[in-house]
Amino acid sequence: MWYCSQGTGEDYPHEVSDNMQERNAASGNTGKQAAGEAAAWMVDDGSVIGLGTGSTTAYAIKAIGRRIDEGLDVLAVVTSYQSEMLAIEAGIPLTTLAEHPELDIAIDGADQVDADLNVIKGGGAAHTREKVVAFSSEQFVVVVDDSKMKEKLDHFVPIEVLPYAKDLVMRCVRELGGEPQLRLASRKDGPVITDNGNFVIDASFGVIENVEALAISLSMCPGVVEHGIFTDVTDMVLIGNTDGSVTRLDTLI
Amino acid sequence: MWYCSQGTGEDYPHEVSDNMQERNAASGNTGKQAAGEAAAWMVDDGSVIGLGTGSTTAYAIKAIGRRIDEGLDVLAVVTSYQSEMLAIEAGIPLTTLAEHPELDIAIDGADQVDADLNVIKGGGAAHTREKVVAFSSEQFVVVVDDSKMKEKLDHFVPIEVLPYAKDLVMRCVRELGGEPQLRLASRKDGPVITDNGNFVIDASFGVIENVEALAISLSMCPGVVEHGIFTDVTDMVLIGNTDGSVTRLDTLI
Repeated sequence: MWYCSQGTGEDYPHEVSDNMQERNAASGNTGKQAAGEAAAWMVDDGSVIGLGTGSTTAYAIKAIGRRIDEGLDVLAVVTSYQSEMLAIEAGIPLTTLAEHPELDIAIDGADQVDADLNVIKGGGAAHTREKVVAFSSEQFVVVVDDSKMKEKLDHFVPIEVLPYAKDLVMRCVRELGGEPQLRLASRKDGPVITDNGNFVIDASFGVIENVEALAISLSMCPGVVEHGIFTDVTDMVLIGNTDGSVTRLDTLI
Repeated sequence: MWYCSQGTGEDYPHEVSDNMQERNAASGNTGKQAAGEAAAWMVDDGSVIGLGTGSTTAYAIKAIGRRIDEGLDVLAVVTSYQSEMLAIEAGIPLTTLAEHPELDIAIDGADQVDADLNVIKGGGAAHTREKVVAFSSEQFVVVVDDSKMKEKLDHFVPIEVLPYAKDLVMRCVRELGGEPQLRLASRKDGPVITDNGNFVIDASFGVIENVEALAISLSMCPGVVEHGIFTDVTDMVLIGNTDGSVTRLDTLI
């Protein structure tokens, strides 16, 4: 469970909040931008960071780049070709998990977040490396706009699967009460191919009543490389609201 | 749990046993060969079969090829480049899991089998596709020589991992009480690369007291593509003894 603070509340670092409010007021940013830029202020000097993938994280990457221009010293591990390209563009020096297997903080977006800070990711098909980075980090910060918050998760679950195992995983999803759909590409023929060379099956389960149980069942299905349910890993959620304010949720230990 | 029958016992098909004994007597075959050839007689005409990987399964593939020469009509799905090459050499017509997602029977070797017919596989680094095929089959038949049988599993567990996740999975194995070792190649520099393009970590846990719990924990570790513990899938084990006889174990439902 979590506690909630908004704007300049006691639990929100004062300098971060002030700066964020200024930026948002100045540029009329969206919720995504507000959340992404707030996360950039969570990065400490001298730290090794994980950079997620997606439109909200892209704002964080750009903002971290601006902090580097102003003297911030960090190294980053990327989770996708997209975040690698954005990080290079932003001037963020890169490293690898092999060189730095333990990260200080990882920042990433989400497709949906519930009241227990369970998360569904994978809309961008990068959730496998994102999950590896999240679990390799001391602190995992999720950045979303407020449309992504739900009391209970009901978003489809992206599942990265070996092409060889497509049909077995589809049967597995149906046995778990879900409706699987192979994700098709729109700028190439046939299915989407992930950065790891695999397929993605999007599985709809309606409202997910038991998130942990579904996560275990999907992990046990042979041929599943990684599914998009993240449990027991999120430390903080930064929610960008439409008025440019940011709400912060922290996991209570 | 299982029941056990040996040689021409009541639970062992008479014609299979007779034929097998003849072959073994004639050629002085090893336990591996005896088990592999016995499995070939389990294949029904008109069936779609899964072909595992490894030295014992190779005997089954060759024997199925001889049955095809004599008129057997089957289609086969392979689990590795090795089994593909052997199957082509043996004249077994191939299909794919995409065309035939539900198989009638799969035949495969194992590194170790326990009294509950839990199995450890992956010495040949092909366990991921082997597991997909095993779970895609109506019947999963394991062929081993008698040195592979143990009351409790204590063999190292091969784990196929995304190269990106090597260090996280190693930490995960240590947290579960195991000792991980990256499998290095001997005919190329650096680590073994699987047929799926990944690494293999061999994890030693000593005697595995709770096989199911370890299987779940390893599956939940991000970056694990598939580990070599097979539970709740083996229907039959054919054990080739050093005297050329074969012992058959069946799972009791």
